[in-house]
Amino acid sequence: MADEKLTPRSENYSEWYNQVIQRAELADYAPVRGCMVVRPYGWALWENIQQSLDRRFKETGHVNAAFPMFIPMSFLEKEKEHVEGFSPELAVVTIGGGEVLEEPLVVRPTSETIIGYMYSKWVKSYRDLPILINQWANVVRWEMRTRLFLRTLEFYWQEGHTAHATAAEAEEETLRMLGIYADFAMQDAAIPVIPGRKSATEKFAGAAASYTIEAMMGDTKALQSGTSHFLGQNFAKAFDIQYLDQNNELQYCWTTSWGVSTRMVGAIIMTHGDDQGLVFPPRLAPIQAVIVPIYRNEEEQGKVMPVVEKIRSQLAAFRVKVDDRTEVTPGFKFNDWEMRGVPLRIEIGPKDVEKGTVALARRDKPGREGKAFISQENIVSAVTGLLDEIHISLYNRARDFRDAHMYDPKDYNEFQEVVQNGWAFSWWCGSADCETKIKEETKATTRCIPLDQPGGTGKCIYCGQPATEKTYFARAY
Amino acid sequence: MADEKLTPRSENYSEWYNQVIQRAELADYAPVRGCMVVRPYGWALWENIQQSLDRRFKETGHVNAAFPMFIPMSFLEKEKEHVEGFSPELAVVTIGGGEVLEEPLVVRPTSETIIGYMYSKWVKSYRDLPILINQWANVVRWEMRTRLFLRTLEFYWQEGHTAHATAAEAEEETLRMLGIYADFAMQDAAIPVIPGRKSATEKFAGAAASYTIEAMMGDTKALQSGTSHFLGQNFAKAFDIQYLDQNNELQYCWTTSWGVSTRMVGAIIMTHGDDQGLVFPPRLAPIQAVIVPIYRNEEEQGKVMPVVEKIRSQLAAFRVKVDDRTEVTPGFKFNDWEMRGVPLRIEIGPKDVEKGTVALARRDKPGREGKAFISQENIVSAVTGLLDEIHISLYNRARDFRDAHMYDPKDYNEFQEVVQNGWAFSWWCGSADCETKIKEETKATTRCIPLDQPGGTGKCIYCGQPATEKTYFARAY
Repeated sequence: MADEKLTPRSENYSEWYNQVIQRAELADYAPVRGCMVVRPYGWALWENIQQSLDRRFKETGHVNAAFPMFIPMSFLEKEKEHVEGFSPELAVVTIGGGEVLEEPLVVRPTSETIIGYMYSKWVKSYRDLPILINQWANVVRWEMRTRLFLRTLEFYWQEGHTAHATAAEAEEETLRMLGIYADFAMQDAAIPVIPGRKSATEKFAGAAASYTIEAMMGDTKALQSGTSHFLGQNFAKAFDIQYLDQNNELQYCWTTSWGVSTRMVGAIIMTHGDDQGLVFPPRLAPIQAVIVPIYRNEEEQGKVMPVVEKIRSQLAAFRVKVDDRTEVTPGFKFNDWEMRGVPLRIEIGPKDVEKGTVALARRDKPGREGKAFISQENIVSAVTGLLDEIHISLYNRARDFRDAHMYDPKDYNEFQEVVQNGWAFSWWCGSADCETKIKEETKATTRCIPLDQPGGTGKCIYCGQPATEKTYFARAY
Repeated sequence: MADEKLTPRSENYSEWYNQVIQRAELADYAPVRGCMVVRPYGWALWENIQQSLDRRFKETGHVNAAFPMFIPMSFLEKEKEHVEGFSPELAVVTIGGGEVLEEPLVVRPTSETIIGYMYSKWVKSYRDLPILINQWANVVRWEMRTRLFLRTLEFYWQEGHTAHATAAEAEEETLRMLGIYADFAMQDAAIPVIPGRKSATEKFAGAAASYTIEAMMGDTKALQSGTSHFLGQNFAKAFDIQYLDQNNELQYCWTTSWGVSTRMVGAIIMTHGDDQGLVFPPRLAPIQAVIVPIYRNEEEQGKVMPVVEKIRSQLAAFRVKVDDRTEVTPGFKFNDWEMRGVPLRIEIGPKDVEKGTVALARRDKPGREGKAFISQENIVSAVTGLLDEIHISLYNRARDFRDAHMYDPKDYNEFQEVVQNGWAFSWWCGSADCETKIKEETKATTRCIPLDQPGGTGKCIYCGQPATEKTYFARAY
């Protein structure tokens, strides 16, 4: 497997993506169309993403719970936009225990409705607010065109659902969670995301406003990598989530929802991967460093292995694997772990044993540039330092790549050209009409209206009418 | 809520169970019949159970993955006993994306079939073995009579699925995991379980042999609390899981599966709970100690709260909550946290501030016996020591209760009597006929044939024929 060359990204990006996932054993196709099996190496990455997000949620006062995956069909119909948005994508259980069900059950595509129903039972008074609950769950959307991690019938995510006494508090929560997503993406996944607001066309079905973090993949397409929705009182009114305020008057709550899914695995693959395979950001990598012992005979093996064990135990605070396979060569192992994206390789051979050194090789810098010989005594500080350096170097490389493919076209002609291989950051009048025409003519959609605006006003890149905000346009996954 | 008395267990055990779950906000009924919402306090307990088990799985070389929840109906039909066992309990998706599906999809009741299918793709050679995979998942069994945590349509569990080259290795794995479950139950849940083999009637549909840990609840009924199955080559043959051995000959694998579910939450409630409410074992309790500040006016509050904060920060290594509500009295808080099963209460009032002490109250020993005043300087060692003591005391109390309700009846007459309020440990000839008659006449089923046998032989408690093994009989959940 590891000795076959991957299709280069420049030749066929989508083929490269599928190959690297299969060869690195991140995921496999399931026997049911559009479903995936997340294999142990892929799931270990997802577990690290989960821990990293979960810690942030808990630090900001959120708690986890679990709501049922079966939702009565009638629940979805209570919020008009919501049912319109989701009904084409539903999986429906019609038989249970051998009997046809009186009311069909939907397998949750998202849980605003059933959680709204429960909140209406739990919330009585302003003292019960805010409710800050998250759940880690599987959801199902019956998609026609699927891609491993990016779009699968069943996928894994977290969905936070909060209820508040005031609009201001709910809006603050919506933006707080967007900030947490951006912080996670930049600090842990080394992905330079752009936080912003979705257009009315692109927002979540049932939301008053949707926010997103958008990332540029290695083929310059955009990937929506996490969303946070201010739901206004739409679901509170549909599900009657009311509370008695301090004046003993009944008020509707204001709610939010926000989610990050196994798409994030796709984002990591496509942001950092290269023609040798995966490149995992050190803070999330399932294996942060692999130790490859090098010996030609039993005598050398007898010298090398005790040092390998010593180094492994010194690195107990890191996620380290010793590749002690005897049926493959060190060269095979180097290629194999490069393909699997392990940030750091530690080579230990007989000469290293004599000199008291090890050889370190960085995944992000192939060849001599990424290689260093260090004293065994300094292994902990060297690994600590290098993992941080690799994180920063991956982040910077992704940011530089993005900036190199980011354009401010002077007119619509140039716009049409640049979005073929990059993003346009352009004034837009805000009309759905211009947005639709741009999409039809260029396949580029509005990715987000960034929170960070240049100020001033300009003319819509499409219609030339006055515009007050600049917007990112790109082809997207 | 907290000031209403719970129905005493002696009066109506089942009512007590439902009340305590609702009042302590562990779970709630979902709008879909038989489904539950696990609320944050209940889910926090489950997360601690998960961590405690997951650590043990990983220490023994297992890795996590995720397999799809939709299984083609035809897969279940490949293993005859399996489909007979599960087909009455299936939820079936017949519509996806608005279209009637060609082949209906079953929502997994358990995943041997789909995992078997994937293993047949992944396993080629003896070098690929063993495969040691676990998944944390939701599963669905369309049960008619449901109880929160004990039997719900959808429930949460882990299911381990392993494939091995030899029968001996698979049998060893089956018993290793049974041992891990027993260790978890005793060391962390403080539940004295009995590990043993299931009878042929009671074994898992499709297994060659099933093992179980059985626990006695507070009403003396038995609860099967975890199972580990040796599947022989049944699923390997049904799904063609074959490997090339060292002689390059094709062999079928030997497989196992094993699971612990949210039933364990029910086991904890019913093993340790009392008429005041929950009693959580300290190593799994979501809140290990609650600090209740006591003051009557702002001046006292100003003195007490800084000490509360100091104690909280000293106890950072524990799961501690400060109950700083101002709208309820300390007495209300004491009852509330007793009902919620928090193992240790720390009271800090103005006198404690003056004397440099705190008052500690143990949940497992109400009244004076469980109360101690200790110096603030010793808080960390006192809490460490007391949590361990409480664990041991809960374990011993549950073991003593079990032993006090364990009988070795001299004949079937006595057997019929003792199983009304306890377990019988009796010789059994092993015939399904005796087992069925005993069940019909007494409602007691064979719980397990313990691994630890007294030796010798005896006469079957029902038919009087020679018997080589003693078996536990009890009414069960």
